[in-house]
Amino acid sequence: MDDLVRFGVSLDRRLLAEFDRHIRRRRYENRSEAIRDMIRGNLVGEEWDDNKETVGVITFVYDHHVRDLPGKLTDIQHDYQGRILSGMHVHLDHNHCLEVLVVKGRGAEIRKVADALVSVKGVKHGKLTMTTTGKAIR
Amino acid sequence: MDDLVRFGVSLDRRLLAEFDRHIRRRRYENRSEAIRDMIRGNLVGEEWDDNKETVGVITFVYDHHVRDLPGKLTDIQHDYQGRILSGMHVHLDHNHCLEVLVVKGRGAEIRKVADALVSVKGVKHGKLTMTTTGKAIR
Amino acid sequence: MDDLVRFGVSLDRRLLAEFDRHIRRRRYENRSEAIRDMIRGNLVGEEWDDNKETVGVITFVYDHHVRDLPGKLTDIQHDYQGRILSGMHVHLDHNHCLEVLVVKGRGAEIRKVADALVSVKGVKHGKLTMTTTGKAIR
Amino acid sequence: MDDLVRFGVSLDRRLLAEFDRHIRRRRYENRSEAIRDMIRGNLVGEEWDDNKETVGVITFVYDHHVRDLPGKLTDIQHDYQGRILSGMHVHLDHNHCLEVLVVKGRGAEIRKVADALVSVKGVKHGKLTMTTTGKAIR
Repeated sequence: MDDLVRFGVSLDRRLLAEFDRHIRRRRYENRSEAIRDMIRGNLVGEEWDDNKETVGVITFVYDHHVRDLPGKLTDIQHDYQGRILSGMHVHLDHNHCLEVLVVKGRGAEIRKVADALVSVKGVKHGKLTMTTTGKAIR
Repeated sequence: MDDLVRFGVSLDRRLLAEFDRHIRRRRYENRSEAIRDMIRGNLVGEEWDDNKETVGVITFVYDHHVRDLPGKLTDIQHDYQGRILSGMHVHLDHNHCLEVLVVKGRGAEIRKVADALVSVKGVKHGKLTMTTTGKAIR
Repeated sequence: MDDLVRFGVSLDRRLLAEFDRHIRRRRYENRSEAIRDMIRGNLVGEEWDDNKETVGVITFVYDHHVRDLPGKLTDIQHDYQGRILSGMHVHLDHNHCLEVLVVKGRGAEIRKVADALVSVKGVKHGKLTMTTTGKAIR
Repeated sequence: MDDLVRFGVSLDRRLLAEFDRHIRRRRYENRSEAIRDMIRGNLVGEEWDDNKETVGVITFVYDHHVRDLPGKLTDIQHDYQGRILSGMHVHLDHNHCLEVLVVKGRGAEIRKVADALVSVKGVKHGKLTMTTTGKAIR
């Protein structure tokens, strides 16, 4: 299924020794996998810079006792219903909920959903994680 | 339930005008909420710098047709079972899966789980998002 | 010269206590200054996102014994002469030089200069720091 | 002078095509140089994570008409004299100055100098750029 090619990389012996130490620490099986990951990380960054169709994960933590907060957050999610692929709700403790939403669309559209949710009063922390549809990233 | 206090901020009139434009763009209801969010963002950064108990979200995208990959990823999750609060699996297309795991523990421990998953051959993109238990963040 | 205005921020008493601890640690004189800095940091980010005229600092470290390297780096700087406001050269040790260039222009143009320098073989580390002309940031 | 070694990297043909497009855009001469840069970037991050002796560049922009500001900034620099290797001052316009300081020491010490300068009232924007002595980075 894969169509693998091979190419050579030349570098200083000591730089390679440092790299090998680094990838053991990060638990990579071998150098190729670590290098592929660095390459893919750069390509995902470009997908977002170029505002192509991509996937983002919105994470937010809130206190569900804040008046009307759960309702507001649900309303916003309905406004962007077509974009949100899936969601997960975790009860962190008696007060705190963590929600994770997986959103598909152009980078700028996904940011808009994230801004709408994170800016609501009572959301204590929110972040957008930029990932990928995987299609352009082999 | 809240114990609100109020304090004054002095700043240049034009800086305030720029800030008001910025918070409209980011959809904040009012200045206080935008300022609280900036403060909380800094505090979450400190939680992680100081290796306190906190919450992280690990996101990774992979091709589930890669031989043994789903099994390997499940095994690793079992190794860290006590730490993983919850997980979600999204089918992005015929080949690609996105998984999101919510992990609780000290920052360094959560990073270890993320490294173990992201470094597996066949995982195309992976990221750790640092968030919070919410407890220390009002 | 300044045209100061004042507005009130309301927040939870415990969030304020955490914020006060944070700004002491970061050595801010008072809350207003810490808040102005957070606001300005967001505005600088927007300047770059919107590709407005701004200022960047390019930092790179290299071994000046690498054949032709100092000449190549000088040639590139001449190609972008109108944009580079100033430069500084530090002798880190017998082999290593650190150079810092202050570059003015639209964000995308500054990035181009940085890419041209950082990608040269023999440059060990390079980074673009996004800052500001200060004009729009009060 | 260099002690070069060579190793092979295997990856999907289409990932390689994407990578080649990416490195042309970023102006790299060849794949080895782009890969060496990604490796070195990770190692510099580790130097700072591990609080080893390293080099940082502190950039800050301020209005020199703010009362006492130039004097305060100079005093702070004297407090940390042994650590500051070199400095540069750029007159951005009639009001605004940009200063760049190159600082050597453990990561935590360099951050302390940066915090002391960036937190002064009247400094409009400040940043610490993490770079390296170059010694451990081949």
